[in-house]
Amino acid sequence: MQITLKQTTDFLRNCDNVYILTHQSPDGDTICSAYGLYHILAQLGKRSKVLCSDEIPARYDFITSKYHDEDFEPECIIAVDVADRNLLGSLNEKYGDRVNLCIDHHISNLDYAEKTYLVSNAAANCENIYKVAVELLGKCTDDIAECVYTGIVTDSGCFKYSCTTSETHLIAAHLMTDNSDVNYSWISRHMDIKSKGRIMAEQEILKRAEYFLDDTCAVACITLDMMNQLNLKSSDLEGIAGILMQIENIKVGITMKEKSENVFKISLRSADEVNVSEVCKTFGGGGHVNAAGCKISGTADEIIKKLVAEIKLKLQEKSD
Amino acid sequence: MQITLKQTTDFLRNCDNVYILTHQSPDGDTICSAYGLYHILAQLGKRSKVLCSDEIPARYDFITSKYHDEDFEPECIIAVDVADRNLLGSLNEKYGDRVNLCIDHHISNLDYAEKTYLVSNAAANCENIYKVAVELLGKCTDDIAECVYTGIVTDSGCFKYSCTTSETHLIAAHLMTDNSDVNYSWISRHMDIKSKGRIMAEQEILKRAEYFLDDTCAVACITLDMMNQLNLKSSDLEGIAGILMQIENIKVGITMKEKSENVFKISLRSADEVNVSEVCKTFGGGGHVNAAGCKISGTADEIIKKLVAEIKLKLQEKSD
Repeated sequence: MQITLKQTTDFLRNCDNVYILTHQSPDGDTICSAYGLYHILAQLGKRSKVLCSDEIPARYDFITSKYHDEDFEPECIIAVDVADRNLLGSLNEKYGDRVNLCIDHHISNLDYAEKTYLVSNAAANCENIYKVAVELLGKCTDDIAECVYTGIVTDSGCFKYSCTTSETHLIAAHLMTDNSDVNYSWISRHMDIKSKGRIMAEQEILKRAEYFLDDTCAVACITLDMMNQLNLKSSDLEGIAGILMQIENIKVGITMKEKSENVFKISLRSADEVNVSEVCKTFGGGGHVNAAGCKISGTADEIIKKLVAEIKLKLQEKSD
Repeated sequence: MQITLKQTTDFLRNCDNVYILTHQSPDGDTICSAYGLYHILAQLGKRSKVLCSDEIPARYDFITSKYHDEDFEPECIIAVDVADRNLLGSLNEKYGDRVNLCIDHHISNLDYAEKTYLVSNAAANCENIYKVAVELLGKCTDDIAECVYTGIVTDSGCFKYSCTTSETHLIAAHLMTDNSDVNYSWISRHMDIKSKGRIMAEQEILKRAEYFLDDTCAVACITLDMMNQLNLKSSDLEGIAGILMQIENIKVGITMKEKSENVFKISLRSADEVNVSEVCKTFGGGGHVNAAGCKISGTADEIIKKLVAEIKLKLQEKSD
């Protein structure tokens, strides 16, 4: 059941001993939504604990270092930035059917929680966390501001993606005014920093990229062999899907990561024109208009063929 | 003589037949300041002409295509984003001593014009152009909004650099609300798009980068030989100085472009800690705290030695 901001904050005022769940393969927005909410609840004198099925990437140490983990039994389960209980990963079995509140911004949200606060035009779910904080506390503490800004920066591509709205910039402006001790440029830069492994991975991807549909579609395939050869860690590849979109004329970028033999995790990114969420839906996945994903089994060549055919249709629809 | 916003708009209301001058090796901010001002003056029914000593990079065709060039004799000269008349390049001789108004955001501005409207904490000079537009017209036209946003995006590294303020985000928020037909995400993405030549150049630079001072300082040297070998155009290298700052632990990035044998144009970028404007001043250059430049003659090795020694001092000052 969808609820309003006011109902969400009423719920938060009345809850305690909260488990906050993120989605699997956590990105900046789900991580910062979770830790942001943790700090909000702490301000209200409430105990909470962040749970994630996967490890939080070391890049977010500056966020997680301000968190104190406690063991307790939950009275309340809140999921943040999780559109589908299956995205909870290993947490799904235990908690997926008893999520009391979901705070999300995915239009594809399956309304699996008891109550859902959904603002689907928010560039980042952290925009919702910001609104919750302001409603409950008047303004953000610096810890909350740091989370909100980091989530926004990661999900909006530092205000670059088309999901960025006037509201996104207004929130950034308010944070900079109200929480001037936060080092915003350090955060933006830090989220952009590349390990030497990452730089090597990007070079390889760009070198090996294949082009389709009159060079408007680029595909990068990262096989297990390549990972081994270059001694890459999966953290070197976090968010790498975006890099193909920097190449001139590219309308759709496909990144394929081999998870086990002939099983690929696919990330699609697109410029305005193509709804890649629909493309991914065809293969059992989903996401946003310009950023979506799915999992496909098969050889790399077979998968590329299928994806490119689907994208060709979408491009044709657009030009019709 | 420094003047206020009100005095600036009074001046603009009373001028006509204006030559608008940009700085040499034009970047997005000087270009968009100039074309933005052109559109403002056009709204006031005034004739103006944009002059630049160098070619405007093709990347800005979407800005320049909305400009109609006319020939006329100037009654008034305005320089935008030009801190020093020497930066006018070949325009300096003819116009450098008769600039009536300068609109700028460089703290290093030499006050060479009759009147100067300087806001040195503006992330981009286009923030000043925005203020001028709002004061004169109430709000921006879409053409002006496009210029202002593009200038801000280029000079603030898409809201990433430490020059970005609450004001910068507020302006972006207002633009998105008042001029909703402008495709802001297209602009952000377009300014980030890389030619295949550029991608090759970045790969080479990252591959050949040298590291100093415990890997906190990275140097990329682009020689004329390298340009020829890789068939690079100078437009492939526009703004390339920033890429070294993406490498982990780097506090100062030095990019050296060989302009003629043993003459290098040096660009310095830094994270919070080091004032590279001061480093460049030592070599007769200048700029902003985190982005500055100079020209030095000598062999690459000699120059690197000198620069690194100077940066070492700055880093030591900081840690003292």
